[in-house]
Amino acid sequence: MSEAREIRLGVLGCGTVGTSFCQLIADQAEVIEARTGIRLRVVSVSVRDLAKPRAGVDASLLTTDSAALVSDPGVDLVVETMGGVEGTRELVLAALRAGKPVVTANKALLAAHGPELYAAADEANVDIGFEAAVAAGIPLIGPLRESLVGEDISRVMGILNGTTNYILSQMTEKGADYADALADAQALGYAEADPTADVEGHDAAAKASILATLAFGRSVLGDDVHTEGISKITAEDIDDADRRGFVIKLLGVVERFDDGSIGARVFPAMVPKLHPLAAVRDSFNAVFVEGVGIDQVMLYGRGAGGHPTAAMVVGDTVNAAMNLVAKTHRRVVNLGPAVVRPVEDIESAFFVSLEVADEPGVLAAIANEFGEHMVSISSMEQEDLESTARLLFITHHAVESNFRATLTGIEALPAVKSVGRVLRVIGS
Amino acid sequence: MSEAREIRLGVLGCGTVGTSFCQLIADQAEVIEARTGIRLRVVSVSVRDLAKPRAGVDASLLTTDSAALVSDPGVDLVVETMGGVEGTRELVLAALRAGKPVVTANKALLAAHGPELYAAADEANVDIGFEAAVAAGIPLIGPLRESLVGEDISRVMGILNGTTNYILSQMTEKGADYADALADAQALGYAEADPTADVEGHDAAAKASILATLAFGRSVLGDDVHTEGISKITAEDIDDADRRGFVIKLLGVVERFDDGSIGARVFPAMVPKLHPLAAVRDSFNAVFVEGVGIDQVMLYGRGAGGHPTAAMVVGDTVNAAMNLVAKTHRRVVNLGPAVVRPVEDIESAFFVSLEVADEPGVLAAIANEFGEHMVSISSMEQEDLESTARLLFITHHAVESNFRATLTGIEALPAVKSVGRVLRVIGS
Repeated sequence: MSEAREIRLGVLGCGTVGTSFCQLIADQAEVIEARTGIRLRVVSVSVRDLAKPRAGVDASLLTTDSAALVSDPGVDLVVETMGGVEGTRELVLAALRAGKPVVTANKALLAAHGPELYAAADEANVDIGFEAAVAAGIPLIGPLRESLVGEDISRVMGILNGTTNYILSQMTEKGADYADALADAQALGYAEADPTADVEGHDAAAKASILATLAFGRSVLGDDVHTEGISKITAEDIDDADRRGFVIKLLGVVERFDDGSIGARVFPAMVPKLHPLAAVRDSFNAVFVEGVGIDQVMLYGRGAGGHPTAAMVVGDTVNAAMNLVAKTHRRVVNLGPAVVRPVEDIESAFFVSLEVADEPGVLAAIANEFGEHMVSISSMEQEDLESTARLLFITHHAVESNFRATLTGIEALPAVKSVGRVLRVIGS
Repeated sequence: MSEAREIRLGVLGCGTVGTSFCQLIADQAEVIEARTGIRLRVVSVSVRDLAKPRAGVDASLLTTDSAALVSDPGVDLVVETMGGVEGTRELVLAALRAGKPVVTANKALLAAHGPELYAAADEANVDIGFEAAVAAGIPLIGPLRESLVGEDISRVMGILNGTTNYILSQMTEKGADYADALADAQALGYAEADPTADVEGHDAAAKASILATLAFGRSVLGDDVHTEGISKITAEDIDDADRRGFVIKLLGVVERFDDGSIGARVFPAMVPKLHPLAAVRDSFNAVFVEGVGIDQVMLYGRGAGGHPTAAMVVGDTVNAAMNLVAKTHRRVVNLGPAVVRPVEDIESAFFVSLEVADEPGVLAAIANEFGEHMVSISSMEQEDLESTARLLFITHHAVESNFRATLTGIEALPAVKSVGRVLRVIGS
C-alpha cells in the first residue's frame, strides 16, 4: 500500500456491472478521496474477449488471465463481477488467502459457498463485501452487519426478485395472464429467455439464504430454502385474492423460532392490500426486518440494474479499502450450521378454494376435517356456481403438516369435486 | 483495554433510553461477544437522582458526577442519553478529546454543534455514533455513512417526526380537527404537553440538518433549515387534498443543486396518495434517499420509542467498540460550511385555493398573473359556492419568489376575495 493510501483494484469481469463500476470509480475517485483519504484506482480488469469495446474502460488494463490478476502483487483488492460459481469460488478464495479484500454481487456464489468464503475472509483479516448480492440497490446487508448488530432479529421477509414482482404487478394491475406478463417482462429485458431461475423462485431462494445466514449467524445455503415459484399462478388466483382484499406477491421469508431452529422459505403469498409490501410494484424490491428492539423496519428500492448494483459495489469497495488500510475487517458471524425447520413443521395461515356439490351437510363435513386436524378457520365465503359451489377458506395459523392432512381428508369427501389453489397468507 | 477486549461503557443519563440501553447490553452481551469478540460492560451511569429506582440497572454503578464519569480512566466509551445541549456538548467534547468514542441519540445537540463534534472525533481517531438521532428505529445514518459512501446523493426527503405524522394521520383517516388530533396524541404520550418542538417542525428541522450534513458532506445546522409546521393545517385542507388524490404530510427535504448549494426545508406538503410516503401512517417515519446510482431507496420504521432507540444505540456502541479495538474510526466527512440556498430561490410545485367573485373575466385575470410571473399552471378546478367560487390551482415547478409575487398580484385583483391555504406539492 502506497504512502498516499492508494488502493489498487483488480476487477474480475467487465459486463454491465463491471463497466458501470469502472466508470463510477473514475467519476467518484476524487470525492471518495476527499471523504475517506483513500484513492481508488482500477489497475486490472479481466475479460473473456480482449477485442470487445468497453465504454469508459482503458483497454490497456484488460487481461484474460483472471488467476494472474488475483495473484498480482500490484492488486490490493479484488472486485468480482464475472458471475458463475465453481471457477469463481477458487478465484475469490485465492484473493482472500492472499490477504486481499473481495467485493462481490454474486448471489449464486454466496448461496452455494458463502460460509466458506466468509470464514476465509475472517481468517485473512480482510473484508468480503456483498451489499449488491441481495436487493442490489437497497442498503440491506450493511444495516444487517452494522446498525442492527445489536438487534435480536426474529424475521426477515420481503420481495427479493424484481422479475416476478413485475409479472405479478402486471397480472394484478392489468388483468394479464401469467404467460402474457412473462412475455412482456422478457420483451423489456426484466426476464431471461429461460426464466426458470426467476419464476421458480431459485433467485429469491439464493438471496433468502444469504439473509438468513447474516441475520441469524448460522449457515443457511440456497438448497436449504423451501422454494415455490409463481409459474402456476393464474389470473383467477389474482382475482380471488383481489376480491378478498389481497394481492399475490412472491416472498422470501427467513425466521428464527424459539427453539433456535430456522425457517427459510420462498413462496407466492396473499398479502393484505394495506400491508406495505402490497404497495411494492413493478420490479422494485422491499425487505422487512423484524426484531425485539426495532419492531419492524422496511427497506425499499431497486432490486437490480447495472447502476444500482455498481453503486453498492463501490460502497463496499470503499469500506473494504478503509478497513484494509486500518488493518481490520468486519466479520460475518457464523456460529455453525443452522438447524433448518422443515416446511411441514412451520405454521402459516392458508387460503384454499374448494369446488363442492351444492348440497346440505357439505360444509359441516369440511369443517369437521379442519377441526379434526386442529386447523382453525378465520373466514369462509361461498360462491354459487351452476350446479356446484366454490368455498373459499382462510385459516388461522396452523402447522403446515396439519393443514396438508386436512386437505387430504377434504379431498376424500364424496361431495368435494376438487381442491383448487392453496396459498399461504401473511399479515392478516 | 483488557486482553479479553472488554470495553467498559460509561452511560450519561438513565431515562427511558438509558435504562433500555443498560438492559439490552446485559441481555445481549454474550451474543455480541460471540459475534464480535468484544465484551461490553456498563461500569458507570450518571443520574440526577441517586434514590430513584431504575429497573435492571445496578444501583452501585450510579453516580451524579457526569464529568468524573467522562474522565474516569476506567471508562473506554461514553454513551450519551442525557439530552440537553450546552452542558452536554462539553461532556461529549471532553470524552472525545480523551480518546473515548461517543454514541448519542441527541439530535438537538448535533443540530447545534454536530460539525464541531464530528471534527473532534476525527481528530481523536475515534467514532461518534448517532444512528438513533434521526428516525430512531430505522437504520439510516449507517447506510449514509457506509453502503452509500460511493453514491452521489442528490436528495433526502422524508417523514422525520412521528408526532406530527400521527396527528395528520388522525385528521386524514378520522376527519379529526387539528386540536382534537393533538389532544389525542398528547393523551397517548406521542406529543408533549408543550408540543411546539414537534408541531412547529423544529424537531424535524434538527434531523434534516443532520441528514444534510451527512448526505452532502457540508455543515448544515438546525438554524439553516427553513421550517414550517402543521399547526395551521385544517380539516378543510386535508379534505381539499383528499379530493384531489393527495394526503398532507410534514416533510423534511434536503437537496443539493447543480451549483453545489444546498436546500434544507421542513414543510407540510401535498403528497400523491400513490406515493410510498402517503402510506406511512401513525407515528412511523420513512425516508427517501435519491442518487444517480441507486435511483430511489426508501427506509421505513419506528421513528421513536425507548426500545428502537436503545437498539440503535447498542448497534453504534458495538461498531464504535470494534473500531476502538482496531484503532480506527469512520470519519464524518465535512468539506466545510454549506452554501444554503434561500427558500425563495428554490423551485416547488404549489397548491393554492382562492375565493373569487363568480363573474366573467376573473379566471383570465388570475391566469394573467401566473403567466406574468412565469408560473405555469398544472391543473385548476372550480367549486361554485353561493355567490362566489373557489378556484383550486396546482402549479408546475416554479421558483418560490415568483410564486409569491404571483400571489401578491392575485391578492390585488378586485375580484379576488381571499387567498386560502398555500401548500407545496411533491411527486406529482
